[in-house]
Amino acid sequence: MATMKLVVVLMMTTVIAVWARDPELTTDFAVPVGMNASMITGDFFTFTGLRDFSAAPNTFGSKKVTHVEFPALTGLGVGVTLLEYKPKTLNPPHTHPRGSELIYVLSGHLDVGLIDSANKLYSAHLHEGDLFVFPQGLVHFQINMSKKKSVRALSAFGSSNAGTISLPRNIFGSGIENEVLLKAFKITSAELMKLKAPFMPTM
Amino acid sequence: MATMKLVVVLMMTTVIAVWARDPELTTDFAVPVGMNASMITGDFFTFTGLRDFSAAPNTFGSKKVTHVEFPALTGLGVGVTLLEYKPKTLNPPHTHPRGSELIYVLSGHLDVGLIDSANKLYSAHLHEGDLFVFPQGLVHFQINMSKKKSVRALSAFGSSNAGTISLPRNIFGSGIENEVLLKAFKITSAELMKLKAPFMPTM
Amino acid sequence: MATMKLVVVLMMTTVIAVWARDPELTTDFAVPVGMNASMITGDFFTFTGLRDFSAAPNTFGSKKVTHVEFPALTGLGVGVTLLEYKPKTLNPPHTHPRGSELIYVLSGHLDVGLIDSANKLYSAHLHEGDLFVFPQGLVHFQINMSKKKSVRALSAFGSSNAGTISLPRNIFGSGIENEVLLKAFKITSAELMKLKAPFMPTM
Amino acid sequence: MATMKLVVVLMMTTVIAVWARDPELTTDFAVPVGMNASMITGDFFTFTGLRDFSAAPNTFGSKKVTHVEFPALTGLGVGVTLLEYKPKTLNPPHTHPRGSELIYVLSGHLDVGLIDSANKLYSAHLHEGDLFVFPQGLVHFQINMSKKKSVRALSAFGSSNAGTISLPRNIFGSGIENEVLLKAFKITSAELMKLKAPFMPTM
Amino acid sequence: MATMKLVVVLMMTTVIAVWARDPELTTDFAVPVGMNASMITGDFFTFTGLRDFSAAPNTFGSKKVTHVEFPALTGLGVGVTLLEYKPKTLNPPHTHPRGSELIYVLSGHLDVGLIDSANKLYSAHLHEGDLFVFPQGLVHFQINMSKKKSVRALSAFGSSNAGTISLPRNIFGSGIENEVLLKAFKITSAELMKLKAPFMPTM
Amino acid sequence: MATMKLVVVLMMTTVIAVWARDPELTTDFAVPVGMNASMITGDFFTFTGLRDFSAAPNTFGSKKVTHVEFPALTGLGVGVTLLEYKPKTLNPPHTHPRGSELIYVLSGHLDVGLIDSANKLYSAHLHEGDLFVFPQGLVHFQINMSKKKSVRALSAFGSSNAGTISLPRNIFGSGIENEVLLKAFKITSAELMKLKAPFMPTM
Repeated sequence: MATMKLVVVLMMTTVIAVWARDPELTTDFAVPVGMNASMITGDFFTFTGLRDFSAAPNTFGSKKVTHVEFPALTGLGVGVTLLEYKPKTLNPPHTHPRGSELIYVLSGHLDVGLIDSANKLYSAHLHEGDLFVFPQGLVHFQINMSKKKSVRALSAFGSSNAGTISLPRNIFGSGIENEVLLKAFKITSAELMKLKAPFMPTM
Repeated sequence: MATMKLVVVLMMTTVIAVWARDPELTTDFAVPVGMNASMITGDFFTFTGLRDFSAAPNTFGSKKVTHVEFPALTGLGVGVTLLEYKPKTLNPPHTHPRGSELIYVLSGHLDVGLIDSANKLYSAHLHEGDLFVFPQGLVHFQINMSKKKSVRALSAFGSSNAGTISLPRNIFGSGIENEVLLKAFKITSAELMKLKAPFMPTM
Repeated sequence: MATMKLVVVLMMTTVIAVWARDPELTTDFAVPVGMNASMITGDFFTFTGLRDFSAAPNTFGSKKVTHVEFPALTGLGVGVTLLEYKPKTLNPPHTHPRGSELIYVLSGHLDVGLIDSANKLYSAHLHEGDLFVFPQGLVHFQINMSKKKSVRALSAFGSSNAGTISLPRNIFGSGIENEVLLKAFKITSAELMKLKAPFMPTM
Repeated sequence: MATMKLVVVLMMTTVIAVWARDPELTTDFAVPVGMNASMITGDFFTFTGLRDFSAAPNTFGSKKVTHVEFPALTGLGVGVTLLEYKPKTLNPPHTHPRGSELIYVLSGHLDVGLIDSANKLYSAHLHEGDLFVFPQGLVHFQINMSKKKSVRALSAFGSSNAGTISLPRNIFGSGIENEVLLKAFKITSAELMKLKAPFMPTM
Repeated sequence: MATMKLVVVLMMTTVIAVWARDPELTTDFAVPVGMNASMITGDFFTFTGLRDFSAAPNTFGSKKVTHVEFPALTGLGVGVTLLEYKPKTLNPPHTHPRGSELIYVLSGHLDVGLIDSANKLYSAHLHEGDLFVFPQGLVHFQINMSKKKSVRALSAFGSSNAGTISLPRNIFGSGIENEVLLKAFKITSAELMKLKAPFMPTM
Repeated sequence: MATMKLVVVLMMTTVIAVWARDPELTTDFAVPVGMNASMITGDFFTFTGLRDFSAAPNTFGSKKVTHVEFPALTGLGVGVTLLEYKPKTLNPPHTHPRGSELIYVLSGHLDVGLIDSANKLYSAHLHEGDLFVFPQGLVHFQINMSKKKSVRALSAFGSSNAGTISLPRNIFGSGIENEVLLKAFKITSAELMKLKAPFMPTM
C-alpha cells in the first residue's frame, strides 16, 4: 500500500514534466495519466471555475485557466484568463514568456500600454467590445481610469500556459541582492528600501 | 506609374503567402509589407470591429478576428471569434483545421457537442461564464435550446487563422458529384436533391 | 507482484500521453518505455503488417500505419496508409485533423475531390503513378469509378498519426441529438431516421 | 518592359526564401506568388511527373517530389520520392537533413541499413509491401542484392523538402582540401586520388 | 531607374516580414532576397564583427549577433551575444522574449541571478569556463563583483533573434504614464521623478 | 524495497523518451522526474564540467553539453560544445542531424569547410573572435593548420541535443556490409580493408 502511494507521487511528477510542452498533437487530445480514456465525458472538456469570479473590492484580480486548472487544454495551445479591474486599479507591468495575449473588453473602458524591445510605448483607450494584442514576451499593462465603474475583460493566449512575470514583484519582491538593484535603478539604499517594502514576502 | 501598380499587386500576393504560417517569431511582431515600422502606433494593436456585432434575427451569427481582419495578429498564434445564437439556433457541425477552440459563454446557456475520431460524442450544457474546449480538427457544434433568450460567446483559438469547415455546406453546397454523395450517405437521388437544396449557391 | 502489475499499467498510460505529440527530436529516435535501447535491432524500424493487405470484396478498405501500429515512427513526423478501392467503391468524405495527405496511385484510375474552407471543390482524375495532395484538415474523398478494376494507393502523411474523421459516420453515427441534425441539415425527422440508419452502431 | 522583367526575377527569389520553411499553416494552402487564387483548380494539387519514371539500365535512380517540383506541397510538411534499383545496384550512404523517411517496397526485395549517432548499424531484408523508417539526419542506404530483378519503392518524407546528402559524392566530389581528407580517412595521397576519381565533377 | 529603387525598398520590407520567424527549414539555408545563390561563398557564413569588441571603460557592454547583423543565421534557430563586464558593472535585469540563453564565462568570475514566474530567485557564482542557462522569457541579470578584473562571456541563444527587454529602461524610459508607474511601484511622484531621471531619452 | 527500485528504473526510461524533444515550453523550465521543484536552486541551472577541459596531446577533442549532461537544458532548445584542436589536427567531416551550429573561435586560427546538398564547398579561414555557421544536417569540418598553436572554440547549437554523426567512423566503423561500401566508393576489397582499419571497433 505504501509502495503504491509513492509510485503515484512519482507519476504525478512525470506528468508535470510531460505537460511542460505545447507541441503538435498526434492524438485527438491528451488523456491524463491514470485516467481511463473510455471514462472521459463532456465534463472533461468543461471548466466551470470562472462562473463566480470577481476581484476583491478596490483591487485588480484575475483568474487563469491553464492546463493546470483545466487538464483538457494540455497540448491544445490555447488558454484564457478572466480579469476584473475595480475603479482606479491597475494590472501592473508584466510579461507572458510563452505566448501572446489577445484581450477582449467585456464591460467598461480600459487603458492599455505595450512597450517593445526598442522601449517604444504603444497605448490605446479601449471600449467595451474592443480587442488589443500583446505580443509574446513584451512588457504591457492595463489600467481602469474610471472612478466609478469596474472593467471586466477576457484574455485569450496562444499557449495552454503562457506564464506571467509581474515585474514590480518579480524584481523587488524576489530577494535580488541590493547591490544589483541599486546599480540597475541608479538609486540610493534608502530609496530601494521604500521600493521593496510593498513587495516583501510576508512571513 | 502603370508599372508600379503592377508591382504593388504582386507584393500583396507575396504577403498572403508569407502570412500563410504561424511560426515562432524572431521579431517583436510582424510589420506588414509597405508599412513603415516607425509609424506604427497603439492603433495597430487595436481592433474595434466587434463593438456592434449582433446576429441577424432568428439566426446564428459570428464574426471572426484573424490576421486577415487584424494584421497585428500575424505570427502571434492567437485569434478570437465572437458568436451570437438567437433563440433556438444552431452553429452547425464544423471543424477548425488549424487550431483548437476554447469557447467562453458571455451570456445565456449553451449546449455543445464534440465528436472524436472514434465517433464518440461528448456533450455539455454550459452556463454563463463556463468554458469548453474543442480540440483541433474535431467535429463540434453549439446550440441555443432556449426559446426566448439569446446566447453570446467568445471563442479563443491557438492560431491567428484556425479556419472553419462548416460541414453541411462544405459537403452539400460545394458541388461534390452526386455519385459520391449517394454512396457516402447511402441515400436515393431524390433524398439527395432535398439535402442539397438548402445549400446550393444562389446565382 | 500485484503491485508491479499495476505500476506497469500506469506506465503504459503515461506512454500514450507522452506519444501524443510529433515535435522536434532531441534523440536519434524514441526508445519506447520499458525497452532497452541496446536490444533494438533493425526489426524495430521494420513494419511488415501491410504485406497481405486487401480490401474485402465490394468495399473500400484501408490499413493505417501510425506510431500506434509501428512505434518506431514516434516523434518522426511521418506515417502512411495503404488503401484499396474495389470497383465502384468510395472512401467517403473525411478529414485528417493533424496532417496533410499525399496520395500515390499504385494501380488503376482514381477520382479525387478536395473542398476548401470557402466550399470550393477541386477535382482530379488520377492515373497510375499520379500524386494528389490533400491539405491538413480539409474535407476530401476518393472514388473508383471503374466497374471492373480495383484501385490501390499509398498515402503519405506529415504526422505519425494524422487521424481520420469519417464524416458521414462521425455526424450520423455518433449519437448527436436529433434537434441538432434536423436544424443543421434542414430536414424532417423521417428523413433524418433514414440518414442515420446506415451508421447506427450495432449492438 | 525591361523594368518589369527585373521585378519578376526579384520576386521569384523572394519566393524561394519564403518557401524555405515548413511551419504550421494559417491558410488552407499556400497560393504561389503571382497566381490568382480564384484560378486554382484540381490540377494545382495534382502531380503527374512520376508516371513514366524508370531508372537507367544497370543503375539506381530516383525522382524527388518536393515543393520545388510540386508547389502545392509548400507548407504542408509532406513529400515523396520514387526509387528504382536495377539488379545489384545501390542507393549509397546518405542523409536527409530536414526530415525522416518512411520507405515502402513496391516490388522486389530490398536490403536496407541505418547507422545511428553511436555508429550502430540496424539492417533489414525487406519484402514487397514492407516499410522501414530512417530517422531524420541519420546515415542510411538501400541495396538490391538480386542479380535479376529490379526493386521499386516509394519513400514518404515528413517535410516538403527533406534534402539529400549523398555522402561519397558530398565528401569526395566537392573539392574538400586533400589535407582534410587524408587526415579524416587516414589514407595516403595515392589512395585519396583513387577515392576521389569516380566523384570528380566532369568539365 | 527611379522605379527600380522604389521596388527594392519594398522588397527589403518584405524581407523583414519574412525573416520574422525561425521555423523548420525546407532548404539548406535561406538565400537573402536579391542575392544570387550561385554567388554565395564561405564569406556568407562567416561573421567577423566580434573581433575587436570591447566594452567602454567602467561599463557593461554587449554585441548581439542575430539574423540582422549576420543574415546567414536566418531560419537556423541559433544566435550569440558577446558580453564584457568592466569591474563592478551590471547587466541589469532583463528578459529575452523569444529564446533561452546559455551563458559561458570566457574570463573572470560572474555572479548571475534568475527569477522564475513564482518570484523565486536562483543565484550562482560562476568561474571561468562555467555555464548557466536562463530559460526563455524569465527575468535575469549578471554582475561582476570584482573591483579590478573585467569579465568576458559568450551567450548562445536558441533563436536567430531572441530579443532583449532591458527592464529598468523599458519601464522607466519608455514614457509609460506616471499614474501607471505610481500605482505599480506604490511610490510618490517625487520618488518616480528620481527613478525615471536616469532613463529619460536625451534630445 | 526491491519493487521500488524497479519502478525507478522504469521511470528513468520514461524520462529519456519524454526528453526526446525540444518543443515550445508550457512551464518556466522542465523539472526532472523525481526532483522536488521546491528543492531546485541556482546549482540546477549551473554547469561546471567544462572548467578543466583540454584535448589530449596531438588530438582534436571536444566536450558536449546537452540535456543529458546538463538536465536544465531540457526543452530550452539550446546547447554548446567546447572544442580544442591541437596543432595540425582535424575535426573530421560530420553532421548534426537536429540543429545548426554557430562556432566562435576562442583562440587561434581555424580553417572550416561546409558542403551543401548540391555538393558545393564553402570555406573560410577564421581568426580569433570570428563566427561561422553550419546549417542543420550539412556536412562540415574544421582543421587547425598551425604547426605550433592550438585552437579553442565554443559552438552554440539551436537544440538541447543536436547530435553528431562523425562520417568516417559512422561509415567505416559501423559494420556496413562490404558489398555496400565497395559499390558506394567504387573501390577494391583491398582498398576497403585499408579504409576500414582505422575505424574498426577494438575488442
